[in-house]
Amino acid sequence: MRDLDRALPAEMPVALVYNGSTLAVMMASPADLTDFALGFSMTEGIVGSAQELGEIEVIEHERGIELRMWLPKDRATAIAERRRAIAGPVGCGLCGIDSLDQALRPLPRVGTGTTLRGRDVAIATDALRNVQPLHDETHAVHAAGFYRPGDGILCAREDVGRHNALDKLAGALTLQGENPASGALVVTSRLSSEMVQKAAMIGAPMLIAVSAPTALGVQLAEEAGITLVARARNGQFDIFTHAERIDTGGPQ
Amino acid sequence: MRDLDRALPAEMPVALVYNGSTLAVMMASPADLTDFALGFSMTEGIVGSAQELGEIEVIEHERGIELRMWLPKDRATAIAERRRAIAGPVGCGLCGIDSLDQALRPLPRVGTGTTLRGRDVAIATDALRNVQPLHDETHAVHAAGFYRPGDGILCAREDVGRHNALDKLAGALTLQGENPASGALVVTSRLSSEMVQKAAMIGAPMLIAVSAPTALGVQLAEEAGITLVARARNGQFDIFTHAERIDTGGPQ
Repeated sequence: MRDLDRALPAEMPVALVYNGSTLAVMMASPADLTDFALGFSMTEGIVGSAQELGEIEVIEHERGIELRMWLPKDRATAIAERRRAIAGPVGCGLCGIDSLDQALRPLPRVGTGTTLRGRDVAIATDALRNVQPLHDETHAVHAAGFYRPGDGILCAREDVGRHNALDKLAGALTLQGENPASGALVVTSRLSSEMVQKAAMIGAPMLIAVSAPTALGVQLAEEAGITLVARARNGQFDIFTHAERIDTGGPQ
Repeated sequence: MRDLDRALPAEMPVALVYNGSTLAVMMASPADLTDFALGFSMTEGIVGSAQELGEIEVIEHERGIELRMWLPKDRATAIAERRRAIAGPVGCGLCGIDSLDQALRPLPRVGTGTTLRGRDVAIATDALRNVQPLHDETHAVHAAGFYRPGDGILCAREDVGRHNALDKLAGALTLQGENPASGALVVTSRLSSEMVQKAAMIGAPMLIAVSAPTALGVQLAEEAGITLVARARNGQFDIFTHAERIDTGGPQ
């Protein structure tokens, strides 16, 4: 038995509450919660812009944190009809077929975006590694960052959950006025279908992952027009979809 | 860019449908789905035994798989009141505080269980590594196994999601008539609070993980009486809670 002095990551129930009703409770790292509230609302299609959400209240309760948000009437009606949560949509009351259709609802197609040189992939993943303070402490959390060629990682967020890290990044980019189409999202985790869905929802045309994608993640990236680069390690990487945004031919 | 010949793990929406209404849709590996249906139902406290569930229908739809189950009336009423899903309970309609209370509802305390020698930890994690066919193919899925001293890994299941792998194992153990208290659950993933909650729900007194726990995972294991062993790598490991079930003092 070794010493137990390495810090353990905190994890806390965080309720996403719209118009007084909880849509989902996520187990999350209790940091950057305004980013999380906004990012989740955008990547899950609950609002189309930060303006629709207005002020976000972060309320600490004894057993967790409540993120209290208010929706315009038409948006509130839409989520009441749709009711979905993150690690799988939750169709309270939907029949089996309807809930499966919701899980794979059509994604918006992303725009042209920018291009990267092949060597940008290693630069981006190396740079992300340098802005993961929570990972340095705990070795047990995921990170998501936004990379722009020439500028490096402009923003990064961490969380015990990989979806949450991406949601927090999405919210932070929105609040900072960065356009996801001007660079690439870079994540430390695997690329499951939900990660690709979230990227599509915020119009991010490029997704780079240190780990592997799932088959469905690749299929959804193909359909949404997203360039999916994964298994980016030791200067090597695999391009799974829409390779036209990666210039591997020029002088490296 | 390297060759892309390593297989990608399949991932598919799987709807858990009780009495005609979907409780959750999980993105899962499409294998061992009867185990999954039963295990999810038990670790989420929807039923107390396999008998309450009766026959499980696995129905393939165009966009995913439906696991159709039928509950006795009192159980159906209970989930209608409780409505929670996996990666965080989903309190459709609950207010913020109520949904946070649900997320950390009291766990049953596990029984005495068995004890392991320190060296069993390495034997268990090594043995699990030998029964991960999907991981060998894809390097991108999680595994959960059941280890009994002297018998090795009696059963193992894999999934793109770590909760799903544990749920499938829980279902398989039930169908095989194995008592989780007679050994230890061994997982390749991190130990978040939900993993500990699921172990407690099936009365598993020992949880061994290759990766790290979260702080809340440790707290819940302490409260539920579960021995939590993590960061089990290269013959070393850390015991976080209830060390009395691990005999590290005797001749190894």
